[in-house]
Amino acid sequence: MPYVTVKMLEGRTEEQKRALVEKVTAAVSETIDAPPEKVFVFLEDLKKSEYAVNGKLLNDE
Amino acid sequence: MPYVTVKMLEGRTEEQKRALVEKVTAAVSETIDAPPEKVFVFLEDLKKSEYAVNGKLLNDE
Amino acid sequence: MPYVTVKMLEGRTEEQKRALVEKVTAAVSETIDAPPEKVFVFLEDLKKSEYAVNGKLLNDE
Amino acid sequence: MPYVTVKMLEGRTEEQKRALVEKVTAAVSETIDAPPEKVFVFLEDLKKSEYAVNGKLLNDE
Amino acid sequence: MPYVTVKMLEGRTEEQKRALVEKVTAAVSETIDAPPEKVFVFLEDLKKSEYAVNGKLLNDE
Amino acid sequence: MPYVTVKMLEGRTEEQKRALVEKVTAAVSETIDAPPEKVFVFLEDLKKSEYAVNGKLLNDE
Repeated sequence: MPYVTVKMLEGRTEEQKRALVEKVTAAVSETIDAPPEKVFVFLEDLKKSEYAVNGKLLNDE
Repeated sequence: MPYVTVKMLEGRTEEQKRALVEKVTAAVSETIDAPPEKVFVFLEDLKKSEYAVNGKLLNDE
Repeated sequence: MPYVTVKMLEGRTEEQKRALVEKVTAAVSETIDAPPEKVFVFLEDLKKSEYAVNGKLLNDE
Repeated sequence: MPYVTVKMLEGRTEEQKRALVEKVTAAVSETIDAPPEKVFVFLEDLKKSEYAVNGKLLNDE
Repeated sequence: MPYVTVKMLEGRTEEQKRALVEKVTAAVSETIDAPPEKVFVFLEDLKKSEYAVNGKLLNDE
Repeated sequence: MPYVTVKMLEGRTEEQKRALVEKVTAAVSETIDAPPEKVFVFLEDLKKSEYAVNGKLLNDE
Protein backbone atom coordinates (compact mmCIF):
# COMPACT_ATOMS: atom_id res chain seq x y z
CA MET A 1 0.00 0.00 0.00
CA PRO A 2 -0.32 2.27 -1.88
CA TYR A 3 -0.95 0.39 -5.13
CA VAL A 4 -0.35 2.14 -8.42
CA THR A 5 -1.47 0.82 -11.80
CA VAL A 6 -0.25 2.38 -15.04
CA LYS A 7 -2.11 1.37 -18.19
CA MET A 8 -0.34 2.53 -21.34
CA LEU A 9 -0.24 1.84 -25.04
CA GLU A 10 2.14 -1.02 -25.95
CA GLY A 11 5.56 -0.17 -27.31
CA ARG A 12 7.47 1.39 -24.42
CA THR A 13 10.99 0.05 -23.94
CA GLU A 14 12.28 -1.72 -20.84
CA GLU A 15 14.41 1.36 -20.23
CA GLN A 16 11.35 3.61 -20.19
CA LYS A 17 9.47 1.26 -17.89
CA ARG A 18 12.41 1.12 -15.50
CA ALA A 19 12.49 4.93 -15.32
CA LEU A 20 8.70 5.05 -15.03
CA VAL A 21 8.45 2.83 -11.94
CA GLU A 22 11.37 4.59 -10.29
CA LYS A 23 9.99 8.11 -10.76
CA VAL A 24 6.38 7.21 -10.02
CA THR A 25 7.39 5.46 -6.80
CA ALA A 26 9.34 8.53 -5.71
CA ALA A 27 6.43 10.84 -6.58
CA VAL A 28 3.94 8.77 -4.59
CA SER A 29 6.26 8.24 -1.66
CA GLU A 30 7.09 11.94 -1.25
CA THR A 31 3.61 13.31 -1.60
CA ILE A 32 1.56 10.95 0.54
CA ASP A 33 4.26 10.02 2.97
CA ALA A 34 4.48 6.31 2.24
CA PRO A 35 7.81 4.46 2.52
CA PRO A 36 9.03 3.53 -1.00
CA GLU A 37 9.31 -0.16 -0.11
CA LYS A 38 5.55 -0.11 0.47
CA VAL A 39 4.76 1.35 -2.95
CA PHE A 40 3.69 -1.33 -5.43
CA VAL A 41 3.45 -0.54 -9.13
CA PHE A 42 1.68 -2.63 -11.76
CA LEU A 43 2.26 -1.97 -15.47
CA GLU A 44 -0.31 -2.91 -18.07
CA ASP A 45 0.38 -2.80 -21.80
CA LEU A 46 -2.65 -2.04 -23.90
CA LYS A 47 -2.72 -3.41 -27.44
CA LYS A 48 -4.06 -1.27 -30.25
CA SER A 49 -6.53 -4.04 -31.02
CA GLU A 50 -8.01 -3.74 -27.52
CA TYR A 51 -8.51 -0.01 -27.24
CA ALA A 52 -11.08 2.20 -28.96
CA VAL A 53 -11.78 5.92 -29.05
CA ASN A 54 -14.80 7.42 -30.79
CA GLY A 55 -16.07 3.91 -31.57
CA LYS A 56 -12.96 2.86 -33.53
CA LEU A 57 -10.23 0.41 -32.50
CA LEU A 58 -6.79 2.03 -32.69
CA ASN A 59 -5.42 -0.59 -35.07
CA ASP A 60 -8.11 0.40 -37.57
CA GLU A 61 -6.98 3.99 -37.82
CA MET B 1 -14.43 9.92 -19.91
CA PRO B 2 -16.54 7.81 -19.75
CA TYR B 3 -14.37 4.69 -19.69
CA VAL B 4 -15.92 1.37 -20.68
CA THR B 5 -14.27 -2.01 -20.11
CA VAL B 6 -15.65 -5.17 -21.70
CA LYS B 7 -14.29 -8.44 -20.36
CA MET B 8 -15.32 -11.42 -22.50
CA LEU B 9 -14.36 -15.00 -23.17
CA GLU B 10 -11.60 -15.32 -25.77
CA GLY B 11 -12.54 -16.25 -29.32
CA ARG B 12 -14.42 -13.27 -30.71
CA THR B 13 -13.35 -12.20 -34.20
CA GLU B 14 -11.89 -8.80 -35.12
CA GLU B 15 -15.12 -8.17 -36.98
CA GLN B 16 -17.20 -8.75 -33.84
CA LYS B 17 -14.93 -6.53 -31.76
CA ARG B 18 -15.12 -3.76 -34.33
CA ALA B 19 -18.93 -3.88 -34.20
CA LEU B 20 -18.86 -4.13 -30.41
CA VAL B 21 -16.87 -0.94 -29.82
CA GLU B 22 -18.92 0.95 -32.40
CA LYS B 23 -22.30 0.01 -30.92
CA VAL B 24 -21.25 0.31 -27.29
CA THR B 25 -19.80 3.77 -27.91
CA ALA B 26 -23.06 4.86 -29.54
CA ALA B 27 -25.12 3.41 -26.67
CA VAL B 28 -23.05 5.20 -24.02
CA SER B 29 -22.89 8.47 -25.92
CA GLU B 30 -26.64 8.67 -26.51
CA THR B 31 -27.79 7.74 -23.04
CA ILE B 32 -25.46 9.76 -20.81
CA ASP B 33 -24.89 12.61 -23.18
CA ALA B 34 -21.15 12.22 -23.70
CA PRO B 35 -19.53 13.12 -27.05
CA PRO B 36 -18.41 9.88 -28.79
CA GLU B 37 -14.83 11.12 -29.14
CA LYS B 38 -14.69 11.17 -25.33
CA VAL B 39 -15.85 7.55 -24.98
CA PHE B 40 -12.92 5.19 -24.40
CA VAL B 41 -13.43 1.42 -24.67
CA PHE B 42 -11.03 -1.25 -23.38
CA LEU B 43 -11.45 -4.87 -24.47
CA GLU B 44 -10.15 -7.73 -22.34
CA ASP B 45 -10.02 -11.32 -23.54
CA LEU B 46 -10.44 -13.87 -20.81
CA LYS B 47 -8.81 -17.27 -21.33
CA LYS B 48 -10.65 -20.42 -20.28
CA SER B 49 -7.67 -21.27 -18.10
CA GLU B 50 -8.14 -18.04 -16.14
CA TYR B 51 -11.85 -18.14 -15.39
CA ALA B 52 -13.76 -20.39 -13.00
CA VAL B 53 -17.41 -20.88 -12.14
CA ASN B 54 -18.59 -23.16 -9.33
CA GLY B 55 -14.97 -23.83 -8.35
CA LYS B 56 -13.95 -25.21 -11.77
CA LEU B 57 -11.78 -23.62 -14.43
CA LEU B 58 -13.58 -23.46 -17.76
CA ASN B 59 -10.88 -25.39 -19.60
CA ASP B 60 -11.49 -28.33 -17.25
CA GLU B 61 -15.12 -28.75 -18.22
CA MET C 1 -20.05 -13.17 -19.00
CA PRO C 2 -19.44 -10.76 -20.64
CA TYR C 3 -18.77 -8.20 -17.90
CA VAL C 4 -19.06 -4.51 -18.71
CA THR C 5 -17.84 -1.71 -16.45
CA VAL C 6 -18.74 1.91 -17.13
CA LYS C 7 -16.79 4.51 -15.19
CA MET C 8 -18.27 7.99 -15.54
CA LEU C 9 -18.22 11.36 -13.84
CA GLU C 10 -20.73 11.64 -11.00
CA GLY C 11 -24.00 13.43 -11.62
CA ARG C 12 -25.94 11.25 -14.03
CA THR C 13 -29.60 10.68 -13.10
CA GLU C 14 -31.18 7.32 -12.32
CA GLU C 15 -33.11 7.73 -15.55
CA GLN C 16 -29.90 8.07 -17.56
CA LYS C 17 -28.33 5.08 -15.85
CA ARG C 18 -31.41 2.98 -16.51
CA ALA C 19 -31.22 3.82 -20.22
CA LEU C 20 -27.45 3.29 -20.22
CA VAL C 21 -27.53 -0.28 -18.91
CA GLU C 22 -30.42 -1.18 -21.22
CA LYS C 23 -28.74 0.11 -24.38
CA VAL C 24 -25.26 -1.12 -23.53
CA THR C 25 -26.58 -4.60 -22.78
CA ALA C 26 -28.35 -4.67 -26.14
CA ALA C 27 -25.23 -3.44 -27.97
CA VAL C 28 -23.02 -6.09 -26.38
CA SER C 29 -25.53 -8.88 -26.80
CA GLU C 30 -26.11 -8.20 -30.52
CA THR C 31 -22.52 -7.76 -31.54
CA ILE C 32 -20.77 -10.60 -29.74
CA ASP C 33 -23.65 -13.00 -29.67
CA ALA C 34 -24.14 -13.26 -25.92
CA PRO C 35 -27.62 -13.79 -24.42
CA PRO C 36 -28.68 -10.56 -22.62
CA GLU C 37 -29.31 -12.39 -19.35
CA LYS C 38 -25.59 -13.22 -19.34
CA VAL C 39 -24.51 -9.60 -19.75
CA PHE C 40 -23.49 -8.02 -16.43
CA VAL C 41 -23.00 -4.28 -16.16
CA PHE C 42 -21.24 -2.44 -13.33
CA LEU C 43 -21.56 1.33 -12.98
CA GLU C 44 -18.92 3.38 -11.20
CA ASP C 45 -19.38 7.05 -10.33
CA LEU C 46 -16.18 9.03 -10.30
CA LYS C 47 -16.02 12.05 -8.00
CA LYS C 48 -14.34 15.25 -9.21
CA SER C 49 -12.05 15.02 -6.20
CA GLU C 50 -10.78 11.63 -7.38
CA TYR C 51 -10.00 12.34 -11.01
CA ALA C 52 -7.18 14.38 -12.51
CA VAL C 53 -6.19 15.43 -16.02
CA ASN C 54 -2.98 17.28 -16.79
CA GLY C 55 -1.93 16.99 -13.16
CA LYS C 56 -5.00 18.81 -11.78
CA LEU C 57 -7.95 17.36 -9.87
CA LEU C 58 -11.24 18.24 -11.58
CA ASN C 59 -12.68 19.93 -8.47
CA ASP C 60 -9.79 22.38 -8.58
CA GLU C 61 -10.65 23.70 -12.00
CA MET D 1 -21.94 -12.59 -7.99
CA PRO D 2 -19.72 -12.53 -6.01
CA TYR D 3 -16.74 -11.89 -8.29
CA VAL D 4 -13.28 -12.81 -7.08
CA THR D 5 -10.05 -11.75 -8.78
CA VAL D 6 -6.70 -13.26 -7.79
CA LYS D 7 -3.63 -11.46 -9.12
CA MET D 8 -0.45 -13.47 -8.54
CA LEU D 9 3.10 -13.70 -9.77
CA GLU D 10 3.47 -15.87 -12.89
CA GLY D 11 4.70 -19.41 -12.52
CA ARG D 12 1.97 -21.31 -10.70
CA THR D 13 1.09 -24.69 -12.22
CA GLU D 14 -2.30 -25.66 -13.63
CA GLU D 15 -2.61 -28.01 -10.66
CA GLN D 16 -2.14 -25.17 -8.20
CA LYS D 17 -4.63 -22.97 -10.03
CA ARG D 18 -7.18 -25.77 -10.07
CA ALA D 19 -6.84 -26.16 -6.28
CA LEU D 20 -6.89 -22.39 -5.83
CA VAL D 21 -10.22 -21.80 -7.56
CA GLU D 22 -11.80 -24.78 -5.81
CA LYS D 23 -10.76 -23.71 -2.30
CA VAL D 24 -11.40 -20.01 -2.80
CA THR D 25 -14.88 -20.71 -4.16
CA ALA D 26 -15.65 -22.85 -1.11
CA ALA D 27 -14.29 -20.19 1.27
CA VAL D 28 -16.40 -17.43 -0.31
CA SER D 29 -19.51 -19.56 -0.59
CA GLU D 30 -19.45 -20.67 3.05
CA THR D 31 -18.71 -17.34 4.61
CA ILE D 32 -21.02 -14.99 2.75
CA ASP D 33 -23.72 -17.49 1.98
CA ALA D 34 -23.53 -17.44 -1.81
CA PRO D 35 -24.26 -20.59 -3.84
CA PRO D 36 -20.97 -21.89 -5.35
CA GLU D 37 -22.40 -21.82 -8.88
CA LYS D 38 -22.74 -18.05 -8.47
CA VAL D 39 -19.10 -17.55 -7.45
CA PHE D 40 -16.96 -16.39 -10.37
CA VAL D 41 -13.18 -16.41 -10.10
CA PHE D 42 -10.75 -14.60 -12.41
CA LEU D 43 -7.05 -15.41 -12.34
CA GLU D 44 -4.45 -12.90 -13.46
CA ASP D 45 -0.78 -13.78 -13.93
CA LEU D 46 1.59 -10.93 -13.26
CA LYS D 47 4.89 -10.92 -15.11
CA LYS D 48 8.06 -9.89 -13.30
CA SER D 49 8.58 -7.25 -15.96
CA GLU D 50 5.24 -5.65 -15.05
CA TYR D 51 5.50 -5.43 -11.30
CA ALA D 52 7.68 -3.14 -9.16
CA VAL D 53 8.33 -2.75 -5.45
CA ASN D 54 10.44 0.05 -4.00
CA GLY D 55 10.82 1.55 -7.46
CA LYS D 56 12.39 -1.54 -9.03
CA LEU D 57 10.88 -4.01 -11.50
CA LEU D 58 11.08 -7.58 -10.18
CA ASN D 59 12.98 -8.83 -13.21
CA ASP D 60 15.75 -6.36 -12.41
CA GLU D 61 16.43 -7.82 -8.99
CA MET E 1 1.31 -10.51 -3.48
CA PRO E 2 -0.99 -12.25 -4.19
CA TYR E 3 -3.78 -9.68 -4.32
CA VAL E 4 -7.37 -10.83 -3.98
CA THR E 5 -10.41 -8.67 -4.72
CA VAL E 6 -13.91 -9.77 -3.75
CA LYS E 7 -16.76 -7.79 -5.26
CA MET E 8 -20.10 -8.63 -3.68
CA LEU E 9 -23.59 -7.25 -3.33
CA GLU E 10 -23.96 -4.80 -0.41
CA GLY E 11 -25.47 -6.03 2.82
CA ARG E 12 -23.00 -8.48 4.28
CA THR E 13 -22.29 -8.01 8.01
CA GLU E 14 -18.91 -7.19 9.52
CA GLU E 15 -18.96 -10.70 10.98
CA GLN E 16 -19.34 -12.26 7.52
CA LYS E 17 -16.58 -10.08 6.08
CA ARG E 18 -14.26 -11.00 8.92
CA ALA E 19 -14.83 -14.71 8.23
CA LEU E 20 -14.52 -14.13 4.49
CA VAL E 21 -11.07 -12.57 4.59
CA GLU E 22 -9.82 -15.17 7.06
CA LYS E 23 -10.97 -18.17 5.01
CA VAL E 24 -10.03 -16.73 1.63
CA THR E 25 -6.54 -15.89 2.87
CA ALA E 26 -6.11 -19.45 4.15
CA ALA E 27 -7.39 -20.92 0.85
CA VAL E 28 -4.99 -18.82 -1.23
CA SER E 29 -2.04 -19.36 1.06
CA GLU E 30 -2.40 -23.15 1.13
CA THR E 31 -2.97 -23.71 -2.56
CA ILE E 32 -0.39 -21.45 -4.15
CA ASP E 33 2.17 -21.59 -1.40
CA ALA E 34 2.20 -17.92 -0.41
CA PRO E 35 2.80 -16.87 3.22
CA PRO E 36 -0.49 -15.52 4.69
CA GLU E 37 1.13 -12.22 5.69
CA LYS E 38 1.73 -11.63 1.97
CA VAL E 39 -1.91 -12.19 1.01
CA PHE E 40 -3.79 -8.91 0.57
CA VAL E 41 -7.57 -8.89 0.29
CA PHE E 42 -9.72 -6.00 -0.95
CA LEU E 43 -13.49 -6.02 -0.40
CA GLU E 44 -15.82 -4.06 -2.66
CA ASP E 45 -19.49 -3.57 -1.89
CA LEU E 46 -21.66 -3.27 -4.95
CA LYS E 47 -24.85 -1.22 -4.63
CA LYS E 48 -28.04 -2.46 -6.29
CA SER E 49 -28.20 0.86 -8.13
CA GLU E 50 -24.81 0.16 -9.74
CA TYR E 51 -25.28 -3.37 -10.99
CA ALA E 52 -27.39 -4.62 -13.90
CA VAL E 53 -28.20 -8.04 -15.31
CA ASN E 54 -30.18 -8.51 -18.53
CA GLY E 55 -30.24 -4.76 -19.05
CA LYS E 56 -31.96 -3.97 -15.72
CA LEU E 57 -30.49 -2.38 -12.60
CA LEU E 58 -31.05 -4.59 -9.56
CA ASN E 59 -32.86 -1.88 -7.61
CA ASP E 60 -35.49 -1.76 -10.36
CA GLU E 61 -36.48 -5.40 -9.98
CA MET F 1 -3.77 7.51 -22.22
CA PRO F 2 -1.85 6.65 -20.11
CA TYR F 3 -4.24 5.90 -17.25
CA VAL F 4 -2.91 5.85 -13.72
CA THR F 5 -4.83 4.51 -10.72
CA VAL F 6 -3.59 5.09 -7.18
CA LYS F 7 -5.27 3.03 -4.47
CA MET F 8 -4.36 4.19 -0.98
CA LEU F 9 -5.56 3.95 2.58
CA GLU F 10 -8.17 6.58 3.48
CA GLY F 11 -7.10 9.65 5.39
CA ARG F 12 -4.91 11.63 3.01
CA THR F 13 -5.71 15.35 2.87
CA GLU F 14 -6.86 17.25 -0.21
CA GLU F 15 -3.48 18.97 -0.13
CA GLN F 16 -1.64 15.66 -0.33
CA LYS F 17 -3.85 14.43 -3.14
CA ARG F 18 -3.31 17.63 -5.08
CA ALA F 19 0.48 17.19 -4.79
CA LEU F 20 0.17 13.48 -5.59
CA VAL F 21 -1.60 13.92 -8.93
CA GLU F 22 0.71 16.77 -9.92
CA LYS F 23 3.93 14.83 -9.24
CA VAL F 24 2.70 11.50 -10.59
CA THR F 25 1.56 13.14 -13.80
CA ALA F 26 4.98 14.75 -14.24
CA ALA F 27 6.77 11.45 -13.51
CA VAL F 28 4.69 9.55 -16.07
CA SER F 29 4.86 12.26 -18.68
CA GLU F 30 8.66 12.60 -18.52
CA THR F 31 9.52 8.94 -18.49
CA ILE F 32 7.24 7.53 -21.17
CA ASP F 33 7.03 10.61 -23.29
CA ALA F 34 3.30 11.29 -23.00
CA PRO F 35 1.96 14.85 -23.03
CA PRO F 36 0.69 15.73 -19.50
CA GLU F 37 -2.74 16.69 -20.80
CA LYS F 38 -3.11 13.06 -21.91
CA VAL F 39 -2.25 11.64 -18.47
CA PHE F 40 -5.38 10.66 -16.51
CA VAL F 41 -5.14 9.87 -12.81
CA PHE F 42 -7.80 8.11 -10.73
CA LEU F 43 -7.60 8.14 -6.93
CA GLU F 44 -9.23 5.42 -4.86
CA ASP F 45 -9.56 5.63 -1.08
CA LEU F 46 -9.51 2.27 0.64
CA LYS F 47 -11.37 1.98 3.95
CA LYS F 48 -9.82 0.00 6.79
CA SER F 49 -12.98 -2.12 6.85
CA GLU F 50 -12.38 -3.16 3.24
CA TYR F 51 -8.74 -4.17 3.35
CA ALA F 52 -7.13 -7.24 4.96
CA VAL F 53 -3.58 -8.47 5.40
CA ASN F 54 -2.75 -11.86 6.87
CA GLY F 55 -6.44 -12.71 7.04
CA LYS F 56 -7.37 -9.72 9.24
CA LEU F 57 -9.27 -6.58 8.34
CA LEU F 58 -7.28 -3.46 9.20
CA ASN F 59 -10.03 -2.01 11.40
CA ASP F 60 -9.76 -5.11 13.60
CA GLU F 61 -6.14 -4.52 14.44
